[in-house]
Amino acid sequence: MAVRSYEIELSTRGNNSMYDVTEQVNQHIKASGMQNGIATVFCPSATSALTTIEYEEGALADFERLFEEIVDANRPYQHNERWRDGNGHSHIRAALLGPSITVPFVNTYLTLGTWQAILYIDFDVRPRHRTLIVQVIGE
Amino acid sequence: MAVRSYEIELSTRGNNSMYDVTEQVNQHIKASGMQNGIATVFCPSATSALTTIEYEEGALADFERLFEEIVDANRPYQHNERWRDGNGHSHIRAALLGPSITVPFVNTYLTLGTWQAILYIDFDVRPRHRTLIVQVIGE
Amino acid sequence: MAVRSYEIELSTRGNNSMYDVTEQVNQHIKASGMQNGIATVFCPSATSALTTIEYEEGALADFERLFEEIVDANRPYQHNERWRDGNGHSHIRAALLGPSITVPFVNTYLTLGTWQAILYIDFDVRPRHRTLIVQVIGE
Repeated sequence: MAVRSYEIELSTRGNNSMYDVTEQVNQHIKASGMQNGIATVFCPSATSALTTIEYEEGALADFERLFEEIVDANRPYQHNERWRDGNGHSHIRAALLGPSITVPFVNTYLTLGTWQAILYIDFDVRPRHRTLIVQVIGE
Repeated sequence: MAVRSYEIELSTRGNNSMYDVTEQVNQHIKASGMQNGIATVFCPSATSALTTIEYEEGALADFERLFEEIVDANRPYQHNERWRDGNGHSHIRAALLGPSITVPFVNTYLTLGTWQAILYIDFDVRPRHRTLIVQVIGE
Repeated sequence: MAVRSYEIELSTRGNNSMYDVTEQVNQHIKASGMQNGIATVFCPSATSALTTIEYEEGALADFERLFEEIVDANRPYQHNERWRDGNGHSHIRAALLGPSITVPFVNTYLTLGTWQAILYIDFDVRPRHRTLIVQVIGE
């Protein structure tokens, strides 16, 4: 058993832009030399989040619509009134979806379904440079 | 320290049908012979998800209502327009709730609360055969 | 590699009251003597949940508003009709947000972003004494 730490670097467009990071996670598992374990992907950020989704344009657009509806950007936020950075909705969307995802791997392969990708979504209101953490634990 | 991989097989009815998989996870922990660690339950699927809930009919019905309201099945989805499989809402509900849950166990027991069950929910629009992954890590 | 189990004790006010537990998790990682690994924080409860957020009054108020809107306490719940405990909305909010969060640590430090705190939120309708589990796995 061992633990190995890796990073994924992303230059995002902010504004709900979405990124499939599955292949980077796979490469880090290969690099670890481990056969079985879990990979925890974590975003050190209060305005972005991770989940899994079928990574195709329609589902991504539908997913964005959900957040625009239940956490509408065009209404007052107390966060914005205090800090004037205009990303109050980004914080709430990120807190709702959550900053991490843990995926088992078996025989060196992530146990994702055929159409299931690891999705990173940047809810912030401007382009950002982001560093995700991939913590691989196993043997 | 070791890692052990197990599976849970389910024949679901789709359509938000919900399953309490707590006992299966408990059995796999027992089978692992480990005393302390974490169990990660993961669904290799883009149209189903996991969380915890009090597994009683009222709460399950209330939980289903939430998804019917905030991710209404009876409206257009871009996913459906592209793929004609009619499960656009299933994808969005699953991505929102998330595909995995990690529960610590201590002295061979899951640390769940008295009324707290591990819930698998299949949001897809037809019956499915599903295989969940249970990755047990500990000592 | 090893696993260590810790607890965080909280006396909450219920009613969506929110607590920053980052420092307690940090202290348990220090106590473990481990350098690298993951910390899984878990609430053994069906009416409370965990995520990360910027822990400042504005964002916390905005986050509470989201739950009041999409899981309105002032409407009928089947859970309440059956059990008469009046916390049907608490169960649904907790199941949606989820009972656990896993955060990697590297060189003894949680990999949280600058403004990112580990948030515990008690959705129940009365003050509660709560015990959270912190499971630290690493080396």
